[in-house]
Parts: sequence; C-alpha cells; structure tokens
Amino acid sequence: MGLNFPIKKPARQKIINKANLGMDLEGLINESNTYYLNNNIAVIHKKPTPVQIVKVDYPMRSKAVITEAYYKTPSTTDYNGIYKGKYIDFEAKENHNKTAFPLANIHPHQIEHLKNIIAHGGIGFMIFSWNAYGEYYILPFDIILEYWNNSLLDGRKSIPYQVFKEHGYLIKEGYLPRLPYLKVIDEIFF
Amino acid sequence: MGLNFPIKKPARQKIINKANLGMDLEGLINESNTYYLNNNIAVIHKKPTPVQIVKVDYPMRSKAVITEAYYKTPSTTDYNGIYKGKYIDFEAKENHNKTAFPLANIHPHQIEHLKNIIAHGGIGFMIFSWNAYGEYYILPFDIILEYWNNSLLDGRKSIPYQVFKEHGYLIKEGYLPRLPYLKVIDEIFF
Repeated sequence: MGLNFPIKKPARQKIINKANLGMDLEGLINESNTYYLNNNIAVIHKKPTPVQIVKVDYPMRSKAVITEAYYKTPSTTDYNGIYKGKYIDFEAKENHNKTAFPLANIHPHQIEHLKNIIAHGGIGFMIFSWNAYGEYYILPFDIILEYWNNSLLDGRKSIPYQVFKEHGYLIKEGYLPRLPYLKVIDEIFF
Repeated sequence: MGLNFPIKKPARQKIINKANLGMDLEGLINESNTYYLNNNIAVIHKKPTPVQIVKVDYPMRSKAVITEAYYKTPSTTDYNGIYKGKYIDFEAKENHNKTAFPLANIHPHQIEHLKNIIAHGGIGFMIFSWNAYGEYYILPFDIILEYWNNSLLDGRKSIPYQVFKEHGYLIKEGYLPRLPYLKVIDEIFF
C-alpha cells in the first residue's frame, strides 16, 4: 500500500510554473534577439541569472553538480548589447497589475546602472508587459526616474497605467520578430 | 576510534582552490572595473556565470535554495559595457603555460560573438595573463582570429608566447587601478 502514496514533488512543480511565467515577456524578447542576431541587425543578449554558488560536487567521470546556491540581487539590468554601433541596455518587467506598475519591482541597482549608462552616452530604457491588456511598452528612462525620485518624496509607490498610455511607446507585436522593440528604439533614439 | 577518522571533504576543497585561481586575472579586472565605475570612467561589468538551474527548494520563511544546477557553456564573453560612448566587449583568459596559450581554452561561441561585436562597430578583444611571467597582454582580435582559423587548417592548437611579445599590448600593472587595461584600449582604439 505504501507504494501507492502519491509522490510529493512541490519544488519541481514550482520551478515549472516559474519558468512559464517568465516565458511571456522574456521569451518574446529572447526570440526577437535571436532574430536580430541571425539577421545581423543587433547583438543583444540576456545576462545569466546571478547566482551565488556555495557547494559543488564533482562526481567521478561526470560533470560538476552545483548542490547549494542562492539567487543574488542583480547589480545591473537583464539585457545589453550593441545596435547601430551604439551601446544599448535595458531591463524587462513583467506586469500583472491592471492600474499601475509597482516600483518595488525595480531594484535600486538597476536605476543606478541605467543612470550611469545614459551618462556615458548609451541607450538605456525598460520594457514593460501589461499582461492584463496584452500590451508592451517602452517607457523612457527619464519618466521612470521621475516616478522613482518622487516616490522617495511623496511615497507614491507605482507608475499609473495612464502614464504608459501617454508617455510610453507601444511595441506593436509582429510576426518576425514577435516583439520588434528596436523599431521603437529607432523612433526614440535614431 | 571511528570518530577520529579524518573528515573527507574533497568537494569543498576544490571550490576554494577554483575560486583562488580565478581571483588572479578576474579579481584584478573586477577591481579595476570598480575603480572605473566609481570614477565615472567606464561602466563595465562581469556577466554572471551561466548556470542551468534544475531544482529549487523553497524552505518555509527562508529564501529559495538551488539544490541542483549545472555550469553551462557561455554563449558570449565575460565582460561588456560602455567606454567613451563605445560598446566594449572582452574575454579574460588566465594562462599558466610558459610557451604558448592553448586555443582549447577559447570557446567557438566566444569567437563568433567577438566577430559579431566588431562587425557592429564595437570594441572587442581578449586579455591574457601569463602567470609564469607575471604579465598581462591585450591581443587584438584579428591576431586571435588568424590563429583560430589557421588551427582549423594546419592543426596548430596554440598561440606562441612570442606572438604576445610581438603583437600584443602589455598592460603595465598600476596602483589605482591595479590593471589599467583601458589605457591600452586608448592606445589601440582611440
């Protein structure tokens, strides 16, 4: 009878869910980046997830297995690369809310990093998904920074959807690539 | 008596050694990048080590623990960023040999990536340590590529030390930063 007990694997379940959630915006951007790379339009890659590796096993005759590691807070953004000879750098933010994007989803390091990039002559921005509406926006960094700085003063902890409608650039989904965000970058920066 | 057996911990030992070996060149570059960042000279970061995460545990009330993961072959280089408004991208190679640098230490992906970067107008190169001589060189990418391509024809699997002496740019160690490699980049590219 003991053999008929259902096998409990909550950890595995959670991983799968997490991966699928991530697929939405990240998957679209990665796919588009592959298209841009293969068609010689831009070289933009996602940086690996930063992980603090604590323990590694080296089983005989097989590859090293990391057996203890932790997610680290990223010190930069998710994506960077080169487009039309310019350094380009951005963060992708999945958003499930309907009325506002919570600033808590942005790390202070990411704001500092994008500030630096722009000061050095690079192109810096963020791409947001509004999953409730199936929309994708690029919001210029100065707008994000305005809300970020104000939140420290007035305590407002989010950027309203209306701001995206008014000041953001809608990325129209396409076929190849599916999320042609560089078209919007052309519009804003070139 | 059983308690007096020496405790076997080969895995842990190996980690420590690996970290120390990596410190040499990587540590120097990271330190220099921090200096460049803090002094507003350049924004250059090391990309996180790419890891394939297989299993994550979520213990109650504490942070997620990655319990199974594997090192992945990197698809790009170790470092990238922006310097004097230009996209900059490079790989750092620690070298313990005395007569030649083995090409096996370079991944085909890294060659492809640097080729792309240069084709798009970026600055791409590699930094090599020659630990036997306490020397650090930047070797222009066209020289690396020449040896890489030739190795496919003539089977020669390394770049001789002499090539570094003749065609490489020696990075003179300094105090702040300790490895002022951007001085050499100025010399070659600006």
